[in-house]
Amino acid sequence: MIYLFGGGKAEGTGEMRDLLGGKGAGLAEMTNAGVPVPAGFTITTEVCNLFYDNDMKAPKGLDVETRNAIKHVEELMGAKFGDPDNPLLVSVRSGAKFSMPGMMDTILNLGLNDETAKGLMKKTGNERMVLDSYRRFIQMFGAVVLGIEREEFESRLAKRKAKARVQQDTSLTPADLKEIVRDFKAVIRRKSPGGFPTDPWTQLSMARDAVFKSWNNPRAITYRRMNEIPSDLGTAVSVQAMVFGNTGNKSGTGVGFTRNPANGAKEFYGEYLTNAQGEDVVAGVRTPKPISQLKKEMPAVYKQLVDITTKLEKYRRDVQDFEFTIQDGELFMLQTRNGKRTAQAAIKIAVDMVKEKLISKEEAMRRLEPSQLDQLLHDRIDPESKVKVMAKGLAASPGAASGRVVFTADDAVMLAQAGEKVILVREETNPDDIHGMEVAAGILTARGGMTSHAAVVARGMGKCCIAGAEAIKVREDRKQFKVGSTVIKERDIISLDGFSGEVIEGAVKTIPPSLSSEFREFMKWADQYRRLKVRTNADTPGDASLAVEFGAEGIGLCRTEHMFFARERLPFVQQLIMADNIVERESALQKLFKYQREDFKGIFQAMLGKPVTIRTLDPPLHEFLPKRHEVEAELAALRSTSADPELIEEKEKILARVHDLSEFNPMLGHRGCRLGITLPEITQMQVKAIITAACDVQKNEKKGAVQPEIMIPLVGHVKEFLHQKEIAQTIAEEVMRKKKVEVPYLIGTMIEVPRACITADEIALEADFFSFGTNDLTQMGLGVSRDDAGKFLGRYQELGIYPEDPFVSIDRAGVGEVVRMAVEKGRKAKPGIKVGICGEHGGDPKSIYFFNEIGLEYVSCSPYRVPVARLAAAQAVLGGEEGRTK
Amino acid sequence: MIYLFGGGKAEGTGEMRDLLGGKGAGLAEMTNAGVPVPAGFTITTEVCNLFYDNDMKAPKGLDVETRNAIKHVEELMGAKFGDPDNPLLVSVRSGAKFSMPGMMDTILNLGLNDETAKGLMKKTGNERMVLDSYRRFIQMFGAVVLGIEREEFESRLAKRKAKARVQQDTSLTPADLKEIVRDFKAVIRRKSPGGFPTDPWTQLSMARDAVFKSWNNPRAITYRRMNEIPSDLGTAVSVQAMVFGNTGNKSGTGVGFTRNPANGAKEFYGEYLTNAQGEDVVAGVRTPKPISQLKKEMPAVYKQLVDITTKLEKYRRDVQDFEFTIQDGELFMLQTRNGKRTAQAAIKIAVDMVKEKLISKEEAMRRLEPSQLDQLLHDRIDPESKVKVMAKGLAASPGAASGRVVFTADDAVMLAQAGEKVILVREETNPDDIHGMEVAAGILTARGGMTSHAAVVARGMGKCCIAGAEAIKVREDRKQFKVGSTVIKERDIISLDGFSGEVIEGAVKTIPPSLSSEFREFMKWADQYRRLKVRTNADTPGDASLAVEFGAEGIGLCRTEHMFFARERLPFVQQLIMADNIVERESALQKLFKYQREDFKGIFQAMLGKPVTIRTLDPPLHEFLPKRHEVEAELAALRSTSADPELIEEKEKILARVHDLSEFNPMLGHRGCRLGITLPEITQMQVKAIITAACDVQKNEKKGAVQPEIMIPLVGHVKEFLHQKEIAQTIAEEVMRKKKVEVPYLIGTMIEVPRACITADEIALEADFFSFGTNDLTQMGLGVSRDDAGKFLGRYQELGIYPEDPFVSIDRAGVGEVVRMAVEKGRKAKPGIKVGICGEHGGDPKSIYFFNEIGLEYVSCSPYRVPVARLAAAQAVLGGEEGRTK
Repeated sequence: MIYLFGGGKAEGTGEMRDLLGGKGAGLAEMTNAGVPVPAGFTITTEVCNLFYDNDMKAPKGLDVETRNAIKHVEELMGAKFGDPDNPLLVSVRSGAKFSMPGMMDTILNLGLNDETAKGLMKKTGNERMVLDSYRRFIQMFGAVVLGIEREEFESRLAKRKAKARVQQDTSLTPADLKEIVRDFKAVIRRKSPGGFPTDPWTQLSMARDAVFKSWNNPRAITYRRMNEIPSDLGTAVSVQAMVFGNTGNKSGTGVGFTRNPANGAKEFYGEYLTNAQGEDVVAGVRTPKPISQLKKEMPAVYKQLVDITTKLEKYRRDVQDFEFTIQDGELFMLQTRNGKRTAQAAIKIAVDMVKEKLISKEEAMRRLEPSQLDQLLHDRIDPESKVKVMAKGLAASPGAASGRVVFTADDAVMLAQAGEKVILVREETNPDDIHGMEVAAGILTARGGMTSHAAVVARGMGKCCIAGAEAIKVREDRKQFKVGSTVIKERDIISLDGFSGEVIEGAVKTIPPSLSSEFREFMKWADQYRRLKVRTNADTPGDASLAVEFGAEGIGLCRTEHMFFARERLPFVQQLIMADNIVERESALQKLFKYQREDFKGIFQAMLGKPVTIRTLDPPLHEFLPKRHEVEAELAALRSTSADPELIEEKEKILARVHDLSEFNPMLGHRGCRLGITLPEITQMQVKAIITAACDVQKNEKKGAVQPEIMIPLVGHVKEFLHQKEIAQTIAEEVMRKKKVEVPYLIGTMIEVPRACITADEIALEADFFSFGTNDLTQMGLGVSRDDAGKFLGRYQELGIYPEDPFVSIDRAGVGEVVRMAVEKGRKAKPGIKVGICGEHGGDPKSIYFFNEIGLEYVSCSPYRVPVARLAAAQAVLGGEEGRTK
Repeated sequence: MIYLFGGGKAEGTGEMRDLLGGKGAGLAEMTNAGVPVPAGFTITTEVCNLFYDNDMKAPKGLDVETRNAIKHVEELMGAKFGDPDNPLLVSVRSGAKFSMPGMMDTILNLGLNDETAKGLMKKTGNERMVLDSYRRFIQMFGAVVLGIEREEFESRLAKRKAKARVQQDTSLTPADLKEIVRDFKAVIRRKSPGGFPTDPWTQLSMARDAVFKSWNNPRAITYRRMNEIPSDLGTAVSVQAMVFGNTGNKSGTGVGFTRNPANGAKEFYGEYLTNAQGEDVVAGVRTPKPISQLKKEMPAVYKQLVDITTKLEKYRRDVQDFEFTIQDGELFMLQTRNGKRTAQAAIKIAVDMVKEKLISKEEAMRRLEPSQLDQLLHDRIDPESKVKVMAKGLAASPGAASGRVVFTADDAVMLAQAGEKVILVREETNPDDIHGMEVAAGILTARGGMTSHAAVVARGMGKCCIAGAEAIKVREDRKQFKVGSTVIKERDIISLDGFSGEVIEGAVKTIPPSLSSEFREFMKWADQYRRLKVRTNADTPGDASLAVEFGAEGIGLCRTEHMFFARERLPFVQQLIMADNIVERESALQKLFKYQREDFKGIFQAMLGKPVTIRTLDPPLHEFLPKRHEVEAELAALRSTSADPELIEEKEKILARVHDLSEFNPMLGHRGCRLGITLPEITQMQVKAIITAACDVQKNEKKGAVQPEIMIPLVGHVKEFLHQKEIAQTIAEEVMRKKKVEVPYLIGTMIEVPRACITADEIALEADFFSFGTNDLTQMGLGVSRDDAGKFLGRYQELGIYPEDPFVSIDRAGVGEVVRMAVEKGRKAKPGIKVGICGEHGGDPKSIYFFNEIGLEYVSCSPYRVPVARLAAAQAVLGGEEGRTK
């Protein structure tokens, strides 16, 4: 029923998670590895099940075994459970096979009562510490074991603090604490028939049973149901001796790392305090000493610590982050775990360890959290700097920026031209804001999710962005925003941390990115493993070149509409939309044709020898016109000043068109191939521009230099695709005939409508390739508008309905399943069909594991995510999520 | 190569559609059935294929066979091809196995030239008729056979008409027509090297080859691809003698029915003219005589006609609509087909024919177009009345109405209270308009589709509605609308035909519905065949009772939000939404609870012994608040009059909330179970109202009287359902315990999100029933917002992309496939799970055939569609679409 550990050996092993729980197995493993952990024992999960079978009573013999186990601990720790002079205190912790955080609290310092407390004071000479531990123990015991409302204790504590006129718990004197201990005992007396049990053995058996019972508390049941953990596993109970670093000058406590967690350098790194408890190091009351000094103060302990942690690093084959306590000259390791590190350190450590033959290249691949790489490609906030966080939003696009606040794109341009760094703050951005976003150092929006316009565009631009910071109330009309009572006006300085989503008041220091030689080496290794190709989403030659530098192998999505939004072009787009005769429309198209042809030339040139997928016009036309209320305001102003009637008439015409084009649900409206079908001249113009550019570039290059792939968006029915394909083929053949150049081109479709997945076999017979648009597929498949999801998706994540934002990581069971089905149907109908993905999920590691699993050929993501995707693609081959080192 | 027919026998049969085409086979069948059709012959489809194999030349021997065939016709018709004195004229028509309308024109009067025309004039004594036929023949020949632009002829004709100062073709004199013949021949001379061929044999072989060639014209190829008709079938060519009813007083022409097509009475019905051509009867130049008079004028012919048509009716077992010509005392049947009839007649004829043992009950079932039944349940426009159609929209809800135009719901109420019938005209309706829609006689909107708010609500109310009449430009601010240059102001009278979608200027006479004894008998038969149960969508006790009268077997969808919109309740809903503390919210909920409890009591009472499915709150909360621009306008007005600051503040608060709640894509926003999850108190209140009402009604009734089924909307993930189910169960058990009444209840979900279909197995394990919400499933599955689809869906139908509006008839290959998958997954996981459908498709016959096919248990539709659904459900068992008699 019980497994002992301590004194260099344990009865259990690290593999016995079923029987000892995660915690018990871990303690056994550490002990067996020669790590000096405080002695203790684990009561098995089987006992928990017996407890339930036995009508919620401990099975026969458990108490006897427990007494023997405590004896074992007493011998190893040189203290006695319940001994008033030299008391052994223990912690009691639950631990199931699978971690269930928050299911039950830990009980520390069990074994304390008025007598043992006195003994401990004598032993440690620290009356305050002991009294504080004592009152905490009573409180925990009352709440966790006896089920008394926490509030009962908190209110007593609050009263005492008020009486003592102190704010912090730490300011309470020993006399105050004595009163509190008395109060707390009174609470228990009143609320629980037996009162506070002073006998340590009673304390122990009650605590143990409480842990067993907690297995079936409603919180735990719900947690298990949500996480699909079987309910018959039961929990183990680990009982472990408490140790004290504050029993004198031969005692102490500290923390450390086996390598530098900031830069990855191979050096023993840490700090400690003598005659102190662990929390003193963290609390900053006393300044800790660098660990090198321990070598002088306690050379033997130091040597032992270095030996142990070095051994641990070798054994665990990773940097160790450890906590230790020295009790009367004896070293105890309280905790050791794989150390958190910066991205820079992670890369260096991984590459070093491969060279030290400590880990294989595969292991190095598995170990890195791919999204960490983002830190290396963007500015970040100097971790040393103090920041005042005003609000938190979604970390929509990585990077860091400080600058002056502006509220309109035009103001952004003006201030940026004056040489200022600006932060563009908007309720939400829209395509009209592009010119402001381009010059801004960072973007902050009050609404919208991880795939809102601001987020997507900012990521594409590699620009820091925080989206959906709901606490911020933006008043664009007054050029200010509020957070609570704080008002930030135009030109005030704020900073954004795009890694954390934190909005910071005032300026902060930022650190620029630098790509180390280790980074380059590491990425090369990744490329050796991965099967998935990595393309990029890029709309300009500049983005395309940047992406190639980051390792992109082609363009998976070039959004032609982003070209339409450019300042000098928008008037022609508007002319196209407003045209009421073919002549005007043709003249606008002719202008746009010239612009697009030049764009495509630049992109083909940047992508020589690589495939370039270009999507025909996708967004609804009203996105290119001013907003309704803007035109209305303009009109009102014009009328009140009795302006030129012709001007008024023109505005009225625009307003009428805006009204005509307005939609209830634009996401499901007149866009994508629906535009190309109702206005075929747009598709004709775009294909003409693509193929003309392709011919012009190909002429001077060797065969295969230009590989255009024309992509029709929002296809739901094969006949939609056919309609557009016929237009595209006709134009393409005509252009090539005239130019007398042959450019092999493909015509495929975005698969982003559920119906397209269901009928993928029919579409595959006609299409050269599929590119999954998982953004829209998620919106339609889940019935969730990404721009509106903020109102409930947060709550959904809290409730565990969608544990992760489905717009960030693909929803495997739902959307993923539809993608898998479409791939299968498509391949069955046309075995060789090219299949990739160009939605935002193309840059998300977990999604990439999935896309690898279902056999896609490539993923496409924004330039800055290309390294992330390359690594994730390598990890996918090495086992994906499960293969990743936690 | 050629199959002859005429003189009472034919070489082909009605089954030989492959070889003779649809038309040729039909002519053979009629001839063999003893129907005197003008003699002729059919050149087979095989010849067409030989023609293509033979480099576009007629195969050897065809000309000889043709000459023999013509000889056969000459003998039977007593005229000679090309004979200047007694010329035989023929028609030449294409005819493939499958009808391909518009693929090629018919050529009539072939064999005319200057000589034969003169002979025909002599024979008929009708110079004008012959000249008009001649110029038409030249024009057709020129266009169809020689490929000359139709415009060439039209412009000549227009010139002549201008010169003669006449508007109508019929006003041209023989002299004018002679000029035109000359002109047309000149056109052909100029455009075609050989000029107009005067030799009838040449005319015939050229016409034949032109028909063969037309098989591969681009129009035909496109048509075949869109309709999936194989391209190697080829077309047949039917050549048939022309007959003339205007050769003297022993000649004539007429049309008739074997039964009265208006009321179904068994009587010989029709009219005719002596010495006239068919078009004269239609043109109304002379008043035709009732067919009974033919009995006196030509008793033998009359008897033959009655005999033939009676035989035809028996043979075809349906009412015949026939055209005949008498040439020199000899009767020829030009056409006979199953007659179109009113719904009333269709029912009477079907029931009579069953009693006459002419058809079986099954046949009677198959024969009726279910949607015709709608005509019997609603007012319709008197077919005798003359109407001036101003515009056409979607026939969104059947019925007919005349009334005074109003532009706001409040005006509708005011004018209706003054005793006027009103037509509510809106750009589009929204839930705020309900009180106006309730009092209106009809509803007309300029925007929105078949499942727009106006359409759905009007159908539910059984009220005439025309939606999406895009030609109408509504100016609600000016209280007028325009169609072209016509302006209709408030209080002007218009009429709506909800069967045709026609908007009519002025008042028209309408005919009220009446349910005949035949109708009741017919519907009883339908119930004997159907397997699907038919429920209704009803939100009030009144609707529920009406639906039961129409045969509903339960409620499939009760939309609780429709109760929220009632005038006296809306303030409490708004209080709920605006509440910033729990007390206010609870007080609003308490009020709503009382209203809802009474609603549900009434509904349960109306549905005793039948299941009642009640959906928890579905629409986004902003639907319950005023529109943004309305509040803004109010605020502006208040500010300009320096109103009470408190009032202004309140409005500002509302505006802020409206702004908070506004969404980019409300269809995919914060609605359905997402509301119940973020605001669980709403679900709690609704379930409490449902179960309290159920207990109160059950108390006084026998077991099984009340069968509530609680339905959670918009579930995409099983965890969403679980969350709401737990709330519902807790409340339900609590209420029943308190009331001490047991009411068996079910908790199920609407399946309307694609993800729910994909994961239907998981959801089925938790849900008692599935009810498919195919409206939203279509919106999400196709990525089409029904309210915005008007902008492209019309074009899509024209192009054949979606041959039918997928919001009217379910898209089988896409949305249907997803439903089928969900049913299979759901049943596999939980074999007994109850599965129905409550989307608008539940009242559409074609969709019902599909739902029967995939094994649903019931469909649910608006009360007025219940009879339609009952019949369609019977037809589904009898073979569905294919089983239906065309």
